[in-house]
Amino acid sequence: MVLVNDAGKSLTDCLVNGELSPFVRADDRALAFGDGLWERVAVVNGTPWWWQDHMNRLRRGCELLGLTAPSQSVLLREIQTVTAGRRQAIVKLILSRGAGSVAYLPGSDQEQTRVITAYPWPEERVRKAQLGVAARVCKTRIAVQPLLGGINHLNRLEMVLAAREMADHEEQEGLLLDANDHLISAIDSNLVLVFGDQMLTPRMDRSGVRGVLRGRIIREFKARTELRRITVDMIAEASEVFLCDVVRGIVPVLSVDGLELSPGPVTAEMQTWLEESRNRP
Amino acid sequence: MVLVNDAGKSLTDCLVNGELSPFVRADDRALAFGDGLWERVAVVNGTPWWWQDHMNRLRRGCELLGLTAPSQSVLLREIQTVTAGRRQAIVKLILSRGAGSVAYLPGSDQEQTRVITAYPWPEERVRKAQLGVAARVCKTRIAVQPLLGGINHLNRLEMVLAAREMADHEEQEGLLLDANDHLISAIDSNLVLVFGDQMLTPRMDRSGVRGVLRGRIIREFKARTELRRITVDMIAEASEVFLCDVVRGIVPVLSVDGLELSPGPVTAEMQTWLEESRNRP
Repeated sequence: MVLVNDAGKSLTDCLVNGELSPFVRADDRALAFGDGLWERVAVVNGTPWWWQDHMNRLRRGCELLGLTAPSQSVLLREIQTVTAGRRQAIVKLILSRGAGSVAYLPGSDQEQTRVITAYPWPEERVRKAQLGVAARVCKTRIAVQPLLGGINHLNRLEMVLAAREMADHEEQEGLLLDANDHLISAIDSNLVLVFGDQMLTPRMDRSGVRGVLRGRIIREFKARTELRRITVDMIAEASEVFLCDVVRGIVPVLSVDGLELSPGPVTAEMQTWLEESRNRP
Repeated sequence: MVLVNDAGKSLTDCLVNGELSPFVRADDRALAFGDGLWERVAVVNGTPWWWQDHMNRLRRGCELLGLTAPSQSVLLREIQTVTAGRRQAIVKLILSRGAGSVAYLPGSDQEQTRVITAYPWPEERVRKAQLGVAARVCKTRIAVQPLLGGINHLNRLEMVLAAREMADHEEQEGLLLDANDHLISAIDSNLVLVFGDQMLTPRMDRSGVRGVLRGRIIREFKARTELRRITVDMIAEASEVFLCDVVRGIVPVLSVDGLELSPGPVTAEMQTWLEESRNRP
């Protein structure tokens, strides 16, 4: 029996069901069907940012898929274990329905699999993003699926196809339309259009992922934020456009499909707000 | 380091990249994104049924996802290895883009992962299916996604949700509608409606999996088979309805949502044809 299938690449700092291990069973349902959820968490000195928001999204996903939300204290302890010795890290948490059943219908005795992995903080990528990015609208469309809209599940082939499409272009960011010509998000961050001091962000009830930072902005700036169906032509009318995600924070969009945009006061205000709320104890 | 995460369940007869192993890396992209393809193959005395059809579908999937189709001779040898000593078995073949990249964009040096697992032949389930099944139309809808339509990819949460929905009902089979009210298939088999001696089967260009047995029927009975958009009300007008897949073969549908149907001469003809073509050398 060979236990290391790909010895050339290392995978340290990975806990599988609490045990230090770089392996999962080959019949895990995450592998077979994408039957599970994930969270990407920014961790500083062992403490995850916006922990409760991640846990709320995970719990909502568990409800929709019929999974059991893992114990928060167990997750927190495991995150501290994998990030020990690092000031800042990204932790990827995968929750799968588990191994051992080959049919679509899960077994009644499924034991869930949880995989917690630490990755280096992408300092340079985060720093660059603050200066802004060029974007284009991807040809790859996101399917409309209200049963899975908003949650962070493991069926992400569309995002992989979009990322592959973007590799052929100069722009760093791809914006995604759904099948109804509504803008949903960028490939791994959410989208906000600014009109004066109002912020519009796409509804996530039919596809896309409800990002944690997006959720924070919606709650913090309730009176100024609106969830809307957003079309491409609204970009030309917007005074500012930015992206947001828990790793890079607020990312100004400098252009979309060659149309130039200038980051303005609301984007700057959000960057300042984020900086301050991160530094608050 | 713990190498067995779930020692209670055994997973034998599994080859990962040609090595006897029940494990894949925890950062495999099949686990993270469902970034890959699969085939479910019926194997008798070490020989896969309809091998070329499986390989054609796999190759088509590889083209759409940008994967490299594995060597057929390697796969055949591995199938013989995992089924050694069994007269009849199901082999599940998973082809993943591989381990080691955490972003949606695959690394330029991805080494694909192939998992080949043998499962017991479900004798009893196959025998029962010949007698017919009761079906109902699922509430779970399949999203429309032309980029992935027809191929057998690993993003199968919709099927899992549909199977979970069916667990609450008496009927054995769930029929799936897409978002446009078109019938696509059953949960793990294809659907054929019979009108006189004509057979209609749903188009698979926007969702669903192009089943290998369905493909055989279309080619073998070209003049009598039509690919169509099919709606639920057409079931009431059909003279017969059957399902087909490579494990259970031709499965008569005895009722849909309580509407009784009777298996007729075309279903019987297909069962006989299948029996004969399987026994042909």
